[in-house]
Amino acid sequence: MIGKLSGDERAQELASLPEWTLVAEPEGIKRRFTFSDFSEAFGFMTRVALLAEQANHHPEWFNVYNRVDITLTTHDADGLSRRDIDLAKAIDALLSA
Amino acid sequence: MIGKLSGDERAQELASLPEWTLVAEPEGIKRRFTFSDFSEAFGFMTRVALLAEQANHHPEWFNVYNRVDITLTTHDADGLSRRDIDLAKAIDALLSA
Repeated sequence: MIGKLSGDERAQELASLPEWTLVAEPEGIKRRFTFSDFSEAFGFMTRVALLAEQANHHPEWFNVYNRVDITLTTHDADGLSRRDIDLAKAIDALLSA
Repeated sequence: MIGKLSGDERAQELASLPEWTLVAEPEGIKRRFTFSDFSEAFGFMTRVALLAEQANHHPEWFNVYNRVDITLTTHDADGLSRRDIDLAKAIDALLSA
């Protein structure tokens, strides 16, 4: 069982994830990604799916054509946990590689 | 440019797609798919992505863990077109194969 981050931990971690926005219902973090076309967007989704499966922590996500909206939250913690932060960092690293 | 289906055409085509529901905003058709886990859900999404790319007609879709919600609409037609019907039939065929 993984716990929800405290307010201080959350603020500290989010400082290192400037592209992600805190959202409510469910409490989590969200980022929009835009690509040149569907092929590029779905290629990215496939890489994220592999990361998610490896971490056994999965996104809530929406795609239309070249746009991917990812929300990360931890249902077991009823909010934002370290698992979300770790997955967000791994996703960001795909794009900076 | 592809046209929107008439009311009669729409009713006739939807009769052959009993699992799909007509939705508004955008006018289209929607179906929910549930799998045993994320791996199975994303495997299905990958097959749908290949169909979509081949047809050059792409879904609006949402996934969380084992659930995939697909909405098909034709932006160019401002509603439901034959492209949506064809893609829905191709998606259904994946599951009956």
